[in-house]
Amino acid sequence: MPNLPKKIDIVEEGPREGFQYEKGPISTARKIELIDALSGTGLETIQMVSFVNPKRVPGWADAEAVAAGFRQVPGVSYRGLWLNMQGFERARETGKLDLRGSFGIAASETFLKRNQNRSIAEQTADNHVIIERFKELGVPVERGGIMAAFGCNYEGDISTGKVVELYGRLIDQATHHGLKLEYIMLADTMGWANPAQIKRTVGAVQDRYPDVPVSLHLHDTRGLGIANAYAGLEMGVTHYDSAVAGLGGCPFAGNAGAAGNVCTEDLVFMCDEMGIETGVDLSKLIECAILAEDIVGHPLPGSVKTGGMLAKMRKAKELAATA
Amino acid sequence: MPNLPKKIDIVEEGPREGFQYEKGPISTARKIELIDALSGTGLETIQMVSFVNPKRVPGWADAEAVAAGFRQVPGVSYRGLWLNMQGFERARETGKLDLRGSFGIAASETFLKRNQNRSIAEQTADNHVIIERFKELGVPVERGGIMAAFGCNYEGDISTGKVVELYGRLIDQATHHGLKLEYIMLADTMGWANPAQIKRTVGAVQDRYPDVPVSLHLHDTRGLGIANAYAGLEMGVTHYDSAVAGLGGCPFAGNAGAAGNVCTEDLVFMCDEMGIETGVDLSKLIECAILAEDIVGHPLPGSVKTGGMLAKMRKAKELAATA
Repeated sequence: MPNLPKKIDIVEEGPREGFQYEKGPISTARKIELIDALSGTGLETIQMVSFVNPKRVPGWADAEAVAAGFRQVPGVSYRGLWLNMQGFERARETGKLDLRGSFGIAASETFLKRNQNRSIAEQTADNHVIIERFKELGVPVERGGIMAAFGCNYEGDISTGKVVELYGRLIDQATHHGLKLEYIMLADTMGWANPAQIKRTVGAVQDRYPDVPVSLHLHDTRGLGIANAYAGLEMGVTHYDSAVAGLGGCPFAGNAGAAGNVCTEDLVFMCDEMGIETGVDLSKLIECAILAEDIVGHPLPGSVKTGGMLAKMRKAKELAATA
Repeated sequence: MPNLPKKIDIVEEGPREGFQYEKGPISTARKIELIDALSGTGLETIQMVSFVNPKRVPGWADAEAVAAGFRQVPGVSYRGLWLNMQGFERARETGKLDLRGSFGIAASETFLKRNQNRSIAEQTADNHVIIERFKELGVPVERGGIMAAFGCNYEGDISTGKVVELYGRLIDQATHHGLKLEYIMLADTMGWANPAQIKRTVGAVQDRYPDVPVSLHLHDTRGLGIANAYAGLEMGVTHYDSAVAGLGGCPFAGNAGAAGNVCTEDLVFMCDEMGIETGVDLSKLIECAILAEDIVGHPLPGSVKTGGMLAKMRKAKELAATA
């Protein structure tokens, strides 16, 4: 039997991913309603808002209003997404976000061009500027990221060697600026990964760079998200991005069927059942998933919100036995 | 890295499971349309019809008409489900089914009672009668099965020890009648299994009974079906039941959210990507999944039918490169 981790950390990305992707319109008040509900679940990190150019992501044109309106709960780290310093400044001006710097790259030149209008070489050069700016601003830089690390709708398969090379490049960039990264995220941005590949790729970077842990950002485009997360758990990966109810999808992935992140409540359920701590109250999280469906106005892909918790069934059985 | 099998065998159960579960009404002609489409995918075994009491499963009241109308394709084994000798006789009278005997048990007394109106002791006794009758009729008995092998909505968790004991009991019953079982199916009838448990349980029966392979019948009630299938692959399991588009669900599972089998095209996609042969043409199978949605008149859970095949994207990229 593999050694599964005792505990994992989840970054909930449902609000940011979901309200970026959904056609909407979704009111500011309802966005806040979901974020406030998620704050009560035990999730320690919520990526709740995006400060990407509203011309490109109209669903987050009200980013400032959402940030102004949500209720901060102590102990929860609220994060925002930005792709340039202008976005970062918008995030900083809210005064309510836990500002953490990150920098990254994509394993696919074409995807990076479409998503951020940069070549890999340009982005590599930009990263030095970005890191310096964060340092000047006193913002900790703790996370690197590699998008399209498992395949790309434009470029096809991505080799393990390329991911290992870019992983090393991000570590070198951090080291150059005197930083130690908490982890580097490998993102299956377009849902190309399979579990054997997760093991192969994660294993390769762990072997080469054992001091910088992997985090996984897994999209469920082709139904393998949860199997890929399981493969990650078997490799000892303890950091996952996920989205309540499976909200989201990437508007620039060039694929109408692009599905959202692996579903948070299904991931938490799997961990609960295997004795892996997440710190999350699954029952409350399922309520959030049902709320998310109500807000977006159509069914969302998560399963345990429909299938039901086993913990509740076990409890009902115990009560029946003692009645 | 684990040693994944080179090849697996799939029993397609979509028609039987789906038309049993869907409220319908679905016309006989449309049922036949799906079965005929599945016959052209490379699937070698299709469980296409159910001869369970039509009072309990009204969706299969037209079992005889469906069996009379479908087009047999050489090389495909068409199977039917029955739960008693009366059902078996109906199957035999069609003259078109590949009659294979099986016998089984449930790891949950309560579920067995509700599903087949038998206690475990009664079913064990019945199995001897069933096996004898199959032998008299010249029908090969090659498969045993344990329902609710990973948990039960009525009885809760099922211990590994209980599954090992029942696995041994079925082997003993077969041996008593001079039979060698091809495999014994462990069914996660109500979607309780997690991948670590799959590994634990499958490992325990493999250790104790290495000569009788496991097959897995996995429901996706709580979103872990494909992760459970992956865990099975890592344990070397080479026999899987699955349902095109994730059709189906168990009408007696006592849970409104009871989802169908793990989705065949998602399973085939995962295997294709990991280099495991299934003999199935994924493109044709996806067409069947889209047809299944049209027939039932609502979205079905499979993912790759929406997300799209990676093989097609790789091909398009190759064509673009040589243009």
